[in-house]
Amino acid sequence: MESTIIWLGDRIKLIDQTQLPDKLEYIECFNYSELGLAIKELKVRGAPAIGIAAGMGIALHLNQKEFNSFLEFESELKIVSDYFKSTRPTAVNLFWVIDRINNKVKTNHLLAIPELKELILTEALKIAKEDENMCKAIGKYGVEIVPENATILTHCNTGALATYGYGTALGVIREAHYSNKNISVFADETRPLLQGARLTTWELMQENIPVTLITDSMAGYFMSKGKIDLVVVGADRIARNGDTANKIGTYSLAVLAKENNIPFFVAAPTSTIDVSILSGDEIAIEERNPDEIIFFGKRKIAPDGVKVSNPAFDVTPSKYITGIITEKGIVKPSYLENIPKLY
Amino acid sequence: MESTIIWLGDRIKLIDQTQLPDKLEYIECFNYSELGLAIKELKVRGAPAIGIAAGMGIALHLNQKEFNSFLEFESELKIVSDYFKSTRPTAVNLFWVIDRINNKVKTNHLLAIPELKELILTEALKIAKEDENMCKAIGKYGVEIVPENATILTHCNTGALATYGYGTALGVIREAHYSNKNISVFADETRPLLQGARLTTWELMQENIPVTLITDSMAGYFMSKGKIDLVVVGADRIARNGDTANKIGTYSLAVLAKENNIPFFVAAPTSTIDVSILSGDEIAIEERNPDEIIFFGKRKIAPDGVKVSNPAFDVTPSKYITGIITEKGIVKPSYLENIPKLY
Repeated sequence: MESTIIWLGDRIKLIDQTQLPDKLEYIECFNYSELGLAIKELKVRGAPAIGIAAGMGIALHLNQKEFNSFLEFESELKIVSDYFKSTRPTAVNLFWVIDRINNKVKTNHLLAIPELKELILTEALKIAKEDENMCKAIGKYGVEIVPENATILTHCNTGALATYGYGTALGVIREAHYSNKNISVFADETRPLLQGARLTTWELMQENIPVTLITDSMAGYFMSKGKIDLVVVGADRIARNGDTANKIGTYSLAVLAKENNIPFFVAAPTSTIDVSILSGDEIAIEERNPDEIIFFGKRKIAPDGVKVSNPAFDVTPSKYITGIITEKGIVKPSYLENIPKLY
Repeated sequence: MESTIIWLGDRIKLIDQTQLPDKLEYIECFNYSELGLAIKELKVRGAPAIGIAAGMGIALHLNQKEFNSFLEFESELKIVSDYFKSTRPTAVNLFWVIDRINNKVKTNHLLAIPELKELILTEALKIAKEDENMCKAIGKYGVEIVPENATILTHCNTGALATYGYGTALGVIREAHYSNKNISVFADETRPLLQGARLTTWELMQENIPVTLITDSMAGYFMSKGKIDLVVVGADRIARNGDTANKIGTYSLAVLAKENNIPFFVAAPTSTIDVSILSGDEIAIEERNPDEIIFFGKRKIAPDGVKVSNPAFDVTPSKYITGIITEKGIVKPSYLENIPKLY
């Protein structure tokens, strides 16, 4: 599969994920605000993917402008960085990529402007390439915890669409499939935006990995019936103590997995770990537009004027997490002790 | 609110619940197979409501035919009874109503055919009226377990639409509201058919009871945030040991409530208790059409050929249930000991 995000020099090409699985449609962003809107509207989504897109967006914007001084350049870098940081609040990869690019500029501030522009682009593309390698490493480590013939439950979409390629939790699933472990997958539909129904099933079916689509409310039922051997999900931000913010509904799966003695793993690159925060209490949860719940496509499914709450993420306390699968290996509890060993 | 199911002598009038909240539309069923289809297609739904509708449907059908002997009458009663029993497998009220009508005929088999027809109709209408009274009694008992200023989470629709009027779990909520307890409600949307989003919010908003709509996957999040004081749900069938079959997703809510130390109550008339079964393992779970998940209205939301599982109910083991609110009082554990005391 071609990558979700493609650098084309004067523009960035994206799969419009809101059109899947109906249409595999690409959009082209010619400036940073078009790209920012695509991030806000989830045309590109998934914690690693939005970080990568933002990195390329910064490079694109600075390449499009002329600067007379480093100060001018630095000021524009700050504007575009702040803009991308404002697009989505929860996933840390976005902030991590932007900070990494800013630090690169800081440590190279004596270079000429054209060289700085080149440096940023190189860094943005390097981040993308690294992401793909990280996902493959996550897959390699993760495959070890997948039993033969396992049925794996996953939530949302953490695949090639959510990353630069291959995926995190879906990377583990892919790797297990290609290791001939004879696995099958249960995919939660993931309301309200149905990333599971639309994207995860689509990705898995493209590779002939057996998948059964269920609603979010059915996951507990299948766990209680002994149909699920393992849960693997992605992450949008992981605190130093292992608390993990991920797509709304993840916390419920973790509690249900614990109650049914099913291992519950998080798969994410170390760039998802936010060492600046001690616990999940410090993670801002994005509240999204009520219309995502009230409307289904164009069809209204709730009464006029209904009050809605629409948090996009929840935080799973680390006590429910069996292990965190990273590109540097699997971290087990105590996370507070073991996460620092990654660095 | 007018009842969901109205006996009109030569036909049965129903609110078409699949059209809500867009349109408050009535359909009229002129024969038993039209009514049976309405039950299968969930135009009328909710465990008590489908029992009541089936009772009226039997009366309607027998009234429409001439019989030369009791044997002919009895044989036709069996045909129409078996037909309605085949419409939905999980809710016990359907079977309870049909058996009650059949027993009434059995103990009065010496009556003339016109009197038997009259007897069945009287019984069917009596069952409907009793249901309304039972719901009000459930409300009266249930209100005692609702704290002042409580935020109550509920699932699916258990209101006037699901019963002959007033509702079971929503009856408790109504009663608490009219007792000035200053309650508010979180309504799960209840995928796949969105009875919470479409029906529960609509009913509550009609009576100005504050309600917030959320997706099923958000319930755990709000519990973990201390936003939910109480969970009250309905039931489709309760085993002698208290295990409760209810709309898919109920089991997950029960586990999440336990994990967060939130009381979890089931509200249902004693006709929902199936004393013929010892535990929930014996309850047949209806598997419904995959299209309920794959299509949203007319929009397809998953790839062509995707495999789907669509159980309509799950079973909540009694260990998660704080109490069962019936029209005869609240039953607490041990259910095996205390349920028989109701009779």
